[in-house]
Amino acid sequence: MRTSQYLIPTIKETPSDAVVISHQLMLRAGMIRKIASGLYTWLPLGLKTLQKVENIVRQEMNKAGALEVLMPAAQPAELWQESGRWEQYGPELLRFKDRHNRDFCVGPTHEEVITDLARNELTSYKQLPMNLYQIQTKFRDEIRPRFGLMRGREFLMKDAYSFHVSQDCLQETYDKMHATYCNIFNRLGLDFRPVEADSGSIGGSSSHEFHVLAESGEDDIVFSTDSNYAANIEKAEAVAPATERTAATVELTETATPDQKTIEEVSQFLNVSAAQVVKTLIVEGTQEEDSEAPAPLIALVVRGDHELNEIKAEHIPAVAEPLTFASDTRIKEVIGCSAGSIGPVGLEIPVYVDRAAAVLSDFVCGANKDDVHLQGTNWERDAQITDVVDLRNVVEGDASPDGNGTLTIKRGIEVGHIFQLGQKYSEALGAKVLDQNGKAQVMTMGCYGIGVSRVVAATVEQNNDDRGMIWPDAIAPYQIGIVPMGKSEEVKELTETVYNTLTDAGYDVLLDDRDKKTSPGVKFADMDLIGIPHRIVISDRGLKGGTIEYKNRREADAKDIAKEEIITFLTETVGR
Amino acid sequence: MRTSQYLIPTIKETPSDAVVISHQLMLRAGMIRKIASGLYTWLPLGLKTLQKVENIVRQEMNKAGALEVLMPAAQPAELWQESGRWEQYGPELLRFKDRHNRDFCVGPTHEEVITDLARNELTSYKQLPMNLYQIQTKFRDEIRPRFGLMRGREFLMKDAYSFHVSQDCLQETYDKMHATYCNIFNRLGLDFRPVEADSGSIGGSSSHEFHVLAESGEDDIVFSTDSNYAANIEKAEAVAPATERTAATVELTETATPDQKTIEEVSQFLNVSAAQVVKTLIVEGTQEEDSEAPAPLIALVVRGDHELNEIKAEHIPAVAEPLTFASDTRIKEVIGCSAGSIGPVGLEIPVYVDRAAAVLSDFVCGANKDDVHLQGTNWERDAQITDVVDLRNVVEGDASPDGNGTLTIKRGIEVGHIFQLGQKYSEALGAKVLDQNGKAQVMTMGCYGIGVSRVVAATVEQNNDDRGMIWPDAIAPYQIGIVPMGKSEEVKELTETVYNTLTDAGYDVLLDDRDKKTSPGVKFADMDLIGIPHRIVISDRGLKGGTIEYKNRREADAKDIAKEEIITFLTETVGR
Repeated sequence: MRTSQYLIPTIKETPSDAVVISHQLMLRAGMIRKIASGLYTWLPLGLKTLQKVENIVRQEMNKAGALEVLMPAAQPAELWQESGRWEQYGPELLRFKDRHNRDFCVGPTHEEVITDLARNELTSYKQLPMNLYQIQTKFRDEIRPRFGLMRGREFLMKDAYSFHVSQDCLQETYDKMHATYCNIFNRLGLDFRPVEADSGSIGGSSSHEFHVLAESGEDDIVFSTDSNYAANIEKAEAVAPATERTAATVELTETATPDQKTIEEVSQFLNVSAAQVVKTLIVEGTQEEDSEAPAPLIALVVRGDHELNEIKAEHIPAVAEPLTFASDTRIKEVIGCSAGSIGPVGLEIPVYVDRAAAVLSDFVCGANKDDVHLQGTNWERDAQITDVVDLRNVVEGDASPDGNGTLTIKRGIEVGHIFQLGQKYSEALGAKVLDQNGKAQVMTMGCYGIGVSRVVAATVEQNNDDRGMIWPDAIAPYQIGIVPMGKSEEVKELTETVYNTLTDAGYDVLLDDRDKKTSPGVKFADMDLIGIPHRIVISDRGLKGGTIEYKNRREADAKDIAKEEIITFLTETVGR
Repeated sequence: MRTSQYLIPTIKETPSDAVVISHQLMLRAGMIRKIASGLYTWLPLGLKTLQKVENIVRQEMNKAGALEVLMPAAQPAELWQESGRWEQYGPELLRFKDRHNRDFCVGPTHEEVITDLARNELTSYKQLPMNLYQIQTKFRDEIRPRFGLMRGREFLMKDAYSFHVSQDCLQETYDKMHATYCNIFNRLGLDFRPVEADSGSIGGSSSHEFHVLAESGEDDIVFSTDSNYAANIEKAEAVAPATERTAATVELTETATPDQKTIEEVSQFLNVSAAQVVKTLIVEGTQEEDSEAPAPLIALVVRGDHELNEIKAEHIPAVAEPLTFASDTRIKEVIGCSAGSIGPVGLEIPVYVDRAAAVLSDFVCGANKDDVHLQGTNWERDAQITDVVDLRNVVEGDASPDGNGTLTIKRGIEVGHIFQLGQKYSEALGAKVLDQNGKAQVMTMGCYGIGVSRVVAATVEQNNDDRGMIWPDAIAPYQIGIVPMGKSEEVKELTETVYNTLTDAGYDVLLDDRDKKTSPGVKFADMDLIGIPHRIVISDRGLKGGTIEYKNRREADAKDIAKEEIITFLTETVGR
């Protein structure tokens, strides 16, 4: 492509409303433009990369035997009513009425539609396993769209759904998808990690997220220093401390702590480490259906230097899901103090204690009275434990749950998710096939997503420097950039020859043919901003010595290549 | 692809809710499934064809120098308010409010969004012409979605928009797009015609439709027997009769015609041909802005055997647009009779007369009294003409407007439309660039659409027989079908070899590997239904004679090909 026939409206200044680097650079490089909050037009340069990602995803899904379909964006409410999600789903679900006043939504996901298809078209176990996928535009009405493509409202997604007669069969497809995702992200040229994720009520390690590692990532992902263990922060188990609780050494005493509210203030005021203080949080418990009484309260206790893990808390059967913190009024009413003053001593509600908090002795806690704390608190002697559970987020240095090494934490951007759905949707919609014995059996399902447009942004988050983006060869909009310098016929002719030869060989080549009014410095800056991984300069000066300058976007220095060698050199250097 | 690993849920019976053949056959062949009125899921087989059409369109657009972009489906109301279409567009426009109560629509077209992009990114005439296109899913809330993909609510569209500083420059791109569309439809393997279409107020031959010829087509398209003249029925000019009006020969008389209402009834009752009767239709005239008086009335007169062409009527400046027939009440009030009894004699409103009606003498017409007609009516003597205009649809045998030959009429399905938009949107949105003289100038625009999913259906409408669809090679989901028959090792091995060789050579091959419980007859019927253009049968019987049976879907008879020759034969026979 010649820049004179193209549209790359680069911008020098960083757009003021762009916070994250991928958003800034993709705007600056003229890859995307915003048309409204969370809605973007893909300009030619951006679309080229998006399509390359799409193609790699498609090729690998096909290789894995998945069958591509295309479902409509608009979905009838009836299907969502059958699954129960019409009521459950929040305002992210864009609901609308058609001109005949019938309810529809614009699909943020397609479990209902695909399960409906499966119940109509699949009749026998012989047709299974079947893995159907689509690459399709989804809409999610985010409350605060932000970070450009990272959290937009309209986005391109690859979503796959598999159907099975047994858990074993599901596991097989699930493992194949795990391997396929690794192939995909490897081919894309990304530094990524599959990590165990929480799978809600299904249990087992039946959910994995795929994260692109980047300091700007929104998610914490956890690794073992010495093994393959990897999980997201929600899932990573905080194992019980190796040491047991020591015996009490002091009496329980009440100390006035006027105006000391946070753990930090209290520990400083009492001159103890935050690890010797406990936080007690009050949440709502599960309620009997149809009961009109207020939900019972549950106390959750973690060490002062630890954070409550809400997902783990939700896994306690007595705790209501989604996790709901009790209101100040309700706490006052039941316990008689403000939320910040609570402690486990004398509490008449169930008390779930984190493993690390459960081994403390002589610790500090709230006194269930305002402006007072207890010192020298000891479990059993002073406060009762309903159960000891894993309730907290792991921290750097915690022991790895698999027994090998300690944990480190990195930042990641979630770009893929594979999940064993079980029978949630097939049960609700009655999607059954006849099994080997001729008996109707509800199918078991898996689902497998990749945020195709998000991958593009995540790639930029991982691959950039102060000059701009740096595309991996496989998904660079153009792999090779050519900047001609000088007005001689030789420069002109060689530029055309090299451009045509590489283009004919199937490379995506960007030739900056802007006239001399645009300085070489500006042209180089644009190539760097756009992130073209391989750049050559064909100049009078170089040709005098018989060479063409080559520069890899990731390397500091350029090198001279004999002009006769340039095609061979590039063919050997540039990946696809 | 092996059928055992695929999903082709064919159906024997014709689905009761499918009226047109493409809808019936695509359902029966398992290419699409309906999920709600006008909303379809593309199953693997259908999607393969859709993607092939999409790729051909993309390749040819790129070849023509158009740049691909991708705009969001959701569009902010503000842009549509700027163009004025937020109010003008009917309920086909799906409007919605997002969770923050802001107005949006799901785009049925993208003039506003692209013009907004152009006004922001294009600044100089040097960047022009620029032709931007996308292949994107659109939504139009049809009142009565029907005919499957022919008139669905969600559909895949290629829409392109070009920007220019001059009409000449637009004309050049327009001509290039005309040629590109011909290339596209030729490559798709379709029998099609570009025809002149009405271009509203812009005038000139600045709009063309591309029609796939099919008896089931909804549109009438008009050709000359002796020249290249082709137009749709709205556009095709009905030239003035070669003969002039003859002098009156009889007196004007009133005849009672009790209960004779239609032209047919009246002409039969009075024993004259329908061509000797005139129809007078009353429509609303243009009204001064803000006037609260009822719209003035206008009379339109055509011959009894001719049809009013509403588009032509709208072109009369005195006639309101869109064409609106006057209500019975209003006619009664102004003229004093029912709508069916009107005639031009004594009318005190403007009377526009079609060219063919204007040359009649001694004709029959309504008397502006119920149950009475006038005979022996003559223009000028009895009735005044405001103007003689072209007001009717042409009919078979009319003279061609270019003076060469006569007109014939065929049925077509509109699959593409190119249009010179002029400055309608660029003016409304203020999309300007600096011209050669450094002066800001409103850009001139063209737009170019292809209904990608509609092309798939139109292809079936044109290519089918009583056994099913017949795909052109270029867009057949699978070009070659293989049916192995017999259990010998040789059949098995040769099947594998042929399948792998052809697949590796880049052909899409469908191997029916269903077991013997499925009879060869059923397999042949499925291949025919699906419309695979080339089928081979590898059987024990054939191999005894050293041959493989080949059958072209369009030919009645199969032929035997030496087994050693089969690859060469297919390579020479099968198109891509």
